[in-house]
Amino acid sequence: MNTSALLFYIGRILIVEALAMLPSMAISLLTGEVTSWRAFVITIATLAVIGLAISLPVSKKSRELHSREGIAIVAISWILLSVFGAMPFFLSKEIPSFVSAFFECVSGLTTTGATILTDVESLSRGMLFWRSFTHWIGGMGVLVFTLAIMPEAYKSTRTTHTGGGDLLHLVQAETPGPIVGKLVPKTAHTAAILYIIYVSLTLLQVIFLLLGGMPAFDAVTVSLGTAGTGGFAVRNAGIAAYSTYCQVVIAIFMALFGVNFNVYFLMLTGNIRRALKSEEMRTYFGIMLAATAVISINVISYFKNIWQAIHHSFFTVSSIITTTGFATVDFNTWPQLSHYILLILMVIGGSSGSTAGGIKVIRSMIVAKGAMQSFRSMLHNRRVKVITIDGKAIDEGVVSKVNVYLNIYVVISAISLLILSLDAISFKESFSSVIACINNVGPGFGRMGAVGNYSTLSNISKLTLSVDMLLGRLEIYPIIMLFMPSMWRKTG
Amino acid sequence: MNTSALLFYIGRILIVEALAMLPSMAISLLTGEVTSWRAFVITIATLAVIGLAISLPVSKKSRELHSREGIAIVAISWILLSVFGAMPFFLSKEIPSFVSAFFECVSGLTTTGATILTDVESLSRGMLFWRSFTHWIGGMGVLVFTLAIMPEAYKSTRTTHTGGGDLLHLVQAETPGPIVGKLVPKTAHTAAILYIIYVSLTLLQVIFLLLGGMPAFDAVTVSLGTAGTGGFAVRNAGIAAYSTYCQVVIAIFMALFGVNFNVYFLMLTGNIRRALKSEEMRTYFGIMLAATAVISINVISYFKNIWQAIHHSFFTVSSIITTTGFATVDFNTWPQLSHYILLILMVIGGSSGSTAGGIKVIRSMIVAKGAMQSFRSMLHNRRVKVITIDGKAIDEGVVSKVNVYLNIYVVISAISLLILSLDAISFKESFSSVIACINNVGPGFGRMGAVGNYSTLSNISKLTLSVDMLLGRLEIYPIIMLFMPSMWRKTG
Repeated sequence: MNTSALLFYIGRILIVEALAMLPSMAISLLTGEVTSWRAFVITIATLAVIGLAISLPVSKKSRELHSREGIAIVAISWILLSVFGAMPFFLSKEIPSFVSAFFECVSGLTTTGATILTDVESLSRGMLFWRSFTHWIGGMGVLVFTLAIMPEAYKSTRTTHTGGGDLLHLVQAETPGPIVGKLVPKTAHTAAILYIIYVSLTLLQVIFLLLGGMPAFDAVTVSLGTAGTGGFAVRNAGIAAYSTYCQVVIAIFMALFGVNFNVYFLMLTGNIRRALKSEEMRTYFGIMLAATAVISINVISYFKNIWQAIHHSFFTVSSIITTTGFATVDFNTWPQLSHYILLILMVIGGSSGSTAGGIKVIRSMIVAKGAMQSFRSMLHNRRVKVITIDGKAIDEGVVSKVNVYLNIYVVISAISLLILSLDAISFKESFSSVIACINNVGPGFGRMGAVGNYSTLSNISKLTLSVDMLLGRLEIYPIIMLFMPSMWRKTG
Repeated sequence: MNTSALLFYIGRILIVEALAMLPSMAISLLTGEVTSWRAFVITIATLAVIGLAISLPVSKKSRELHSREGIAIVAISWILLSVFGAMPFFLSKEIPSFVSAFFECVSGLTTTGATILTDVESLSRGMLFWRSFTHWIGGMGVLVFTLAIMPEAYKSTRTTHTGGGDLLHLVQAETPGPIVGKLVPKTAHTAAILYIIYVSLTLLQVIFLLLGGMPAFDAVTVSLGTAGTGGFAVRNAGIAAYSTYCQVVIAIFMALFGVNFNVYFLMLTGNIRRALKSEEMRTYFGIMLAATAVISINVISYFKNIWQAIHHSFFTVSSIITTTGFATVDFNTWPQLSHYILLILMVIGGSSGSTAGGIKVIRSMIVAKGAMQSFRSMLHNRRVKVITIDGKAIDEGVVSKVNVYLNIYVVISAISLLILSLDAISFKESFSSVIACINNVGPGFGRMGAVGNYSTLSNISKLTLSVDMLLGRLEIYPIIMLFMPSMWRKTG
């Protein structure tokens, strides 16, 4: 383990977090929220001092990274970012418990959107903005963000024969999805294109919401939460506080942010036909359509007419499959069938290469295709076909990795359930809380439902769910490997 | 598809079921239960006539089997055995609804032990015996049973170069577990040894229970239910109706029937040291020990002293991990942590090559070892070790099959939950019912708990759970493949 490189990159990342807090600090200053402003100033100063202190002494030669360092940097950074990101909430006493503040910040950065707040509107503007902003920077990956704004750091690393730089190790550990296609930001160039898409879509949503008469602060924060597929709202009524037009805009943009960004990249580079043929995108929209249809019929008696049922079903399906977690209605009161469908959507999640959580549509497809293939191969031993996606054969190693990933995912969920079960909550509440947090969705059912929150949980439960959120966002491996002794051996 | 062979073997299997009903018929006759006796006579006559009518015309030359025929015979037989096995319950009007009677018989044959009866003691002796006897014949596999009592059928088939006869295809489709070691009954000889172990252990349990003063009828039926890891009781109070001594005997024998029979085979053939080294057996007992310890502490306040807590915890753990489902206490009232542990035990189940259900200990081991290996391989790309069990490397193909199996298992559970959710039951009830049925355990939680039953469910739910029980018992593939069009094509 090259600890110098570790310190250098972690230091830089902390400085990026300090920079990321500046807009929130500015808002606190403009609105005259002195306590908030002071909390931001202290945190920013702390981040800057620590960041500079640990990164400056590292010479250019000592910055070399291998996959082990990459994994360690990602895991440690996300934990530190959450700890420091919680400081403003705690220092301003807007969230008096540090565990709760940590939970809230992890929930923000991992784009989960689970909250311990019972009265969101009592928060200061600066804190509300920071809360939503964590979604936005967490959505695309703080490290990709770091790359984008620190090109000199990127360029300074040597390029290997595989075409990517050392920083590729960082990005791989942070970028979700088993097949990241051609769009893992191997170069500062592709990282920039990704960010242009991300920023453009966010701005587009802000404009559409402003056109619908939404207040500017709400339009911006809601758009940040949509882009990151986070789900923190700035109103106690959630998205129900806005007009039907605004709800439709948000539902559509949630769906758009759950699409693999590769598809947009292909569209931008003129490959529109190939983009539209993406199997993952088609499956993703197919699942949304089917789920919306079934839930609409299932909840029809809960609404005045079929259109309202379709409207709220579509919004909820779009919110849940993209793991955003915004709500226009209390779907907690819906019938059991809808709940099970929503739980399944939580697990499936959005597309790989998007900001969404869950196990991702592509993994679900590999599972489904693997199952079908196993039936066929039992009948025709010699005519075994490989699994294909977008016409390309999926390597057996990839299939095997997906399966192992899912197994670990189930084991971690089971362990989390055991810990949560010690809390005074119902079976449905503990089960849905773990599913909602490890998949970075946000709301579960019962007291943790769409109009509820996670405030009643014990500190142990809150910490367990915080770990689940981090595990889910980083796709398990980096966090677990941090605690393996062989990770820290000198050679390997 | 060679339909002649299909008819021949299915016919023979129906005749075996007719023979298997004779003891129950005799009991009805002896106890003077005329209605029950008549129901058995009609069913036996029907089975014999149909069995002979479809098997007799098939010439010796037309009996050739391939894996496709084997799979089809197993799947169709189990469905037909359940339909005809339900007839006595229905004809005697002791279970007036045919769907309920079918559920009860599937539950018996698959060794699940889930019941729709609200008052077990109101059943006639003959029916109670038939109910428990289905556990016993279902436990070791009706087809293995068929082989054992029809050696001439076995010998009549040609022997392939792999050492097994055509009937091996049948046995493979019915025998649980991914690695059946050397003890798949490849010959009538090993089948006979398996049956000797099975019968001896059952008799031993009967003797131990009689020594404890248990009435003879109860001792026999409870032992049949223990051997098959079924769980149907003949008292409304379940196993709580018997003395502590008897409860301990049952707990120990449940644990013994959940051990891989390979271990006993090795012991009988003098390989005691190798038998005791079996990793699956050690893991199985290790899980039991750990679960008993945690649950004992968790439920200590529910009992007068620690010994009672340990006694009932051990009984429950032994009953649940072996997927038997007997109960001495209403563990439904236990705290949430114990419930989650029990749910996890239900999924893990007993050892491969035993009569127990669940995904089996060996699959859980492969999952756990695969997960550990994946972490190691991420750190040391070149030093990837293969997974070993009992010192032998597990082929990657086996690992991949286990993973695909688990994926299909999860998908089927999810579909079942969607159907169950249409019923007027709670989330915990639907969830635990599916887990309890697909793993052939029996009792779930809530109204389907240890002192409850499945009587309140709709017919659709009962049929769904019946299918789950069959899927679980036959390890999914045979039943699903029955509905694949390519299964029925002329060539392939």
